[in-house]
Amino acid sequence: MSENNILGTNVIAQIGILVHDIEKTSQAYADFFGVENPGWSLTDTVDKAETEYKGEPTEARAKLAFFDMGSLQLELIEPDEHPSTWREYLDEHGEGPHHIAFHIKGMKEKITIMEQNQMPLMQKGEYTGGRYAYMDTFKDLKIILELLENDN
Amino acid sequence: MSENNILGTNVIAQIGILVHDIEKTSQAYADFFGVENPGWSLTDTVDKAETEYKGEPTEARAKLAFFDMGSLQLELIEPDEHPSTWREYLDEHGEGPHHIAFHIKGMKEKITIMEQNQMPLMQKGEYTGGRYAYMDTFKDLKIILELLENDN
Repeated sequence: MSENNILGTNVIAQIGILVHDIEKTSQAYADFFGVENPGWSLTDTVDKAETEYKGEPTEARAKLAFFDMGSLQLELIEPDEHPSTWREYLDEHGEGPHHIAFHIKGMKEKITIMEQNQMPLMQKGEYTGGRYAYMDTFKDLKIILELLENDN
Repeated sequence: MSENNILGTNVIAQIGILVHDIEKTSQAYADFFGVENPGWSLTDTVDKAETEYKGEPTEARAKLAFFDMGSLQLELIEPDEHPSTWREYLDEHGEGPHHIAFHIKGMKEKITIMEQNQMPLMQKGEYTGGRYAYMDTFKDLKIILELLENDN
């Protein structure tokens, strides 16, 4: 890995796809790939997730469903109506792919370096065992990057 | 692998991203991930590629650039102005992710089975050592699937 790699990795861990109806689309994936429907889980409430969108706390939550697709996960995301990158992108672009995600170490430092490179933080939050950040890399990379930091 | 898996695989081999300026976006990826700019190659002319879009031959070509991102490739695609799924999707959705690709065996059979499942063939063509097909899976899976069949 080059020391010039800002993230310290180039391994894509997830592809995130925005949907209107996670139960319907999950079942379509399960049927097509011959796997069990994994069901969905709801992201934590703002008091626990500390969700921030554009620098402000937001009550936004989303239903998530994960499918193992080789070495990476395909993540389906059905956001609620509160402000989030998920809701904004879904309203602007319609259903479809939203981001690719990478596992990183040192979230604060990575966010600082990316912001110095004109890639602003869009949204961040906590989940059990870790935290995430969506970075606005669209102008340069033509896709949003999500950083994932797990404690273990 | 379940025998109910239509493709015979669930391993994502590529993510394809549509761009307006492949040289600019390739350089942005090279800079961000600390790798060499791989340059781009042009798809073959219609006489060699036998490119068909919506059942008709098309002169459409695209510039392609590939980055190795863990176990899969990230493919940048800059299409020309002739009719193709690339051009149509770029005009409708703007720059951004277009498809995920899977390596399969038995292209004709896979296309037939998918069409029987209301997932029509959108575009196909040949490349040196293999062939590809874009299938319209958007209605069910919220992303286009590409099938890749290499001879070796």
